[in-house]
Amino acid sequence: MQHKGKEQKNLVKKKEKVNNMTFENTTDIVEKTARQWLKDRGISLMDIADLVYFLQKRYHPDLKMETCLYNVEKVLAKREVQNAIITGIHLDTLAEKGQLEEPLLTMLRTDEGLYGVDEVLAFSIVNVYGSIGFTNYGYIDKMKPGILKKLNNKTSGRCHTFLDDIIGAIAAAASSRLAHQAKDAE
Amino acid sequence: MQHKGKEQKNLVKKKEKVNNMTFENTTDIVEKTARQWLKDRGISLMDIADLVYFLQKRYHPDLKMETCLYNVEKVLAKREVQNAIITGIHLDTLAEKGQLEEPLLTMLRTDEGLYGVDEVLAFSIVNVYGSIGFTNYGYIDKMKPGILKKLNNKTSGRCHTFLDDIIGAIAAAASSRLAHQAKDAE
Amino acid sequence: MQHKGKEQKNLVKKKEKVNNMTFENTTDIVEKTARQWLKDRGISLMDIADLVYFLQKRYHPDLKMETCLYNVEKVLAKREVQNAIITGIHLDTLAEKGQLEEPLLTMLRTDEGLYGVDEVLAFSIVNVYGSIGFTNYGYIDKMKPGILKKLNNKTSGRCHTFLDDIIGAIAAAASSRLAHQAKDAE
Amino acid sequence: MQHKGKEQKNLVKKKEKVNNMTFENTTDIVEKTARQWLKDRGISLMDIADLVYFLQKRYHPDLKMETCLYNVEKVLAKREVQNAIITGIHLDTLAEKGQLEEPLLTMLRTDEGLYGVDEVLAFSIVNVYGSIGFTNYGYIDKMKPGILKKLNNKTSGRCHTFLDDIIGAIAAAASSRLAHQAKDAE
Repeated sequence: MQHKGKEQKNLVKKKEKVNNMTFENTTDIVEKTARQWLKDRGISLMDIADLVYFLQKRYHPDLKMETCLYNVEKVLAKREVQNAIITGIHLDTLAEKGQLEEPLLTMLRTDEGLYGVDEVLAFSIVNVYGSIGFTNYGYIDKMKPGILKKLNNKTSGRCHTFLDDIIGAIAAAASSRLAHQAKDAE
Repeated sequence: MQHKGKEQKNLVKKKEKVNNMTFENTTDIVEKTARQWLKDRGISLMDIADLVYFLQKRYHPDLKMETCLYNVEKVLAKREVQNAIITGIHLDTLAEKGQLEEPLLTMLRTDEGLYGVDEVLAFSIVNVYGSIGFTNYGYIDKMKPGILKKLNNKTSGRCHTFLDDIIGAIAAAASSRLAHQAKDAE
Repeated sequence: MQHKGKEQKNLVKKKEKVNNMTFENTTDIVEKTARQWLKDRGISLMDIADLVYFLQKRYHPDLKMETCLYNVEKVLAKREVQNAIITGIHLDTLAEKGQLEEPLLTMLRTDEGLYGVDEVLAFSIVNVYGSIGFTNYGYIDKMKPGILKKLNNKTSGRCHTFLDDIIGAIAAAASSRLAHQAKDAE
Repeated sequence: MQHKGKEQKNLVKKKEKVNNMTFENTTDIVEKTARQWLKDRGISLMDIADLVYFLQKRYHPDLKMETCLYNVEKVLAKREVQNAIITGIHLDTLAEKGQLEEPLLTMLRTDEGLYGVDEVLAFSIVNVYGSIGFTNYGYIDKMKPGILKKLNNKTSGRCHTFLDDIIGAIAAAASSRLAHQAKDAE
């Protein structure tokens, strides 16, 4: 049980009431870390909201940026999304510092086409609002608008093998959520 | 737009405000149909809550049936779950009436081991609260407690090839939701 | 056991030796039906090979149509692909004939954006050669080159809600296979 | 092209002919590493074959261990399986050495119930022979027969958060493959 005590000190879990939905309460250490690491890697939530706008403007002519941003926030509040973010960014960072063993190091540094674990992680994000996000994810990944183009600049010395798929996946999931909400509002 | 008019007559979509969470408002025709068809096939929500209890009692000694039932309700409120339910039950019913062509008819009637589309549909349900439900789904499908045993009685003349996987998947998803809530409440 | 006898008459399973890879031997009734129904719905394997070419020409400048076609054949030889094809096409056909109940009928006839079961089925196809096909699927579904554009012509009176996703998924899976083969051949 | 040259030096890709199925030829650096790391973590292929036997003996009374082992070998030959193995084991090892940042470190060390990325990776393995492996994976993960029980011994000081799910997934995929082969052989 001493081990458990150490855990609690590390994770600093706050006592919360079930169904208590105030934003600050549900922000635990995992969510805070996920948001911080996105920021540290140069990603703002507005960058992701821009991708949502790119994907959805054709279906919703009156779409506002604040609606895109709101849906990105909702996706980031999901625990499985936060888990994927911190795992993927940590692997990118370790690759950048050369702290992974071969052949993993080279596969990550070169964003090797057959690696696929980046897509697997991205997929656990796309899924949070159902299968209708699959096509948005694939489309944005090929077109690489906005921040995705910057992340794919191979001359930067940074490794964003996981991050670019994760960002595309968050935008795709936020688009699915937006589509569900719009339908409910019809 | 005439086409749109026809759609609306068929689906009888009610105008709803976004984020208006009252239960009656969000119950649209798809949700109503999903709930009705479960009932028509002999499934009560309490049957599914029993499965959640079976899966989760070991982790939560004070677990109450009403908590299980509440989480089943939440899963049933998801559109992708409703879509899987009505598609799967409709295929089961068509197979029962002999209204499918071969070889699909025989594969469904005999719950053929290599068919797998039933698991694929079940999976879109398990996924709604993330990957931690995968193992619950597999476990319950092999153990076949409660209602699942009854559905697998091959002498009934009924075809439940999709339904038994769907019920197991709803119970697994409700278990994942319950686990997430319990963690938040710690 | 009489029931089993009836099954066997219906499925006409041929005795085959394990690992006997001759093409004719492995073509059982499920594969034959899948291939026939694709043809009946106006899809030739060359149409799908064209989509593979569209997706892969940028990565393989010397790509030949026969290589694309070969990989499409390999995808069609997979049982889970055949299962998805016959289930999806059967649902499309029933919708076309008005032989499904509401609200499923309208959702299929109008290819409703929140339905998603078509994507779920497509996904079980994309998956057969791993996660690297996800993005190809999404991209082709948005761009709708070649046969996909024809399938989406809403004025034809046909219902291709499942078929267009299935065709895109076969092309995406064949592209993944081609990428794996090319890498092995380097 | 200089960049490409560097890649090739690191990965030591051997030239192979497409469709050349000899075992030694397809064993590239990724496969070799995956097999070595399994061994280094105390897993023999016979341990995994035992799990396949546990899962399949009820369906195939004459099942031989060599058949189980053969199907495990086939699963290990898949690139997406190898990718998942080396990524998961590397994360386990980094956690064991304390070389991951918080909160990832604690989540991995304690095999936290809501983490889920281990299941996500496992799933990319289960999928290689289709959806019929889902239930085998969930069942074996709950029952923890053989080597899985040993991996879950929390007093060993080792971290097997990813490895136990990966081993279960390989066994589930090998079981699916075996089921497909048996059906073809009927």
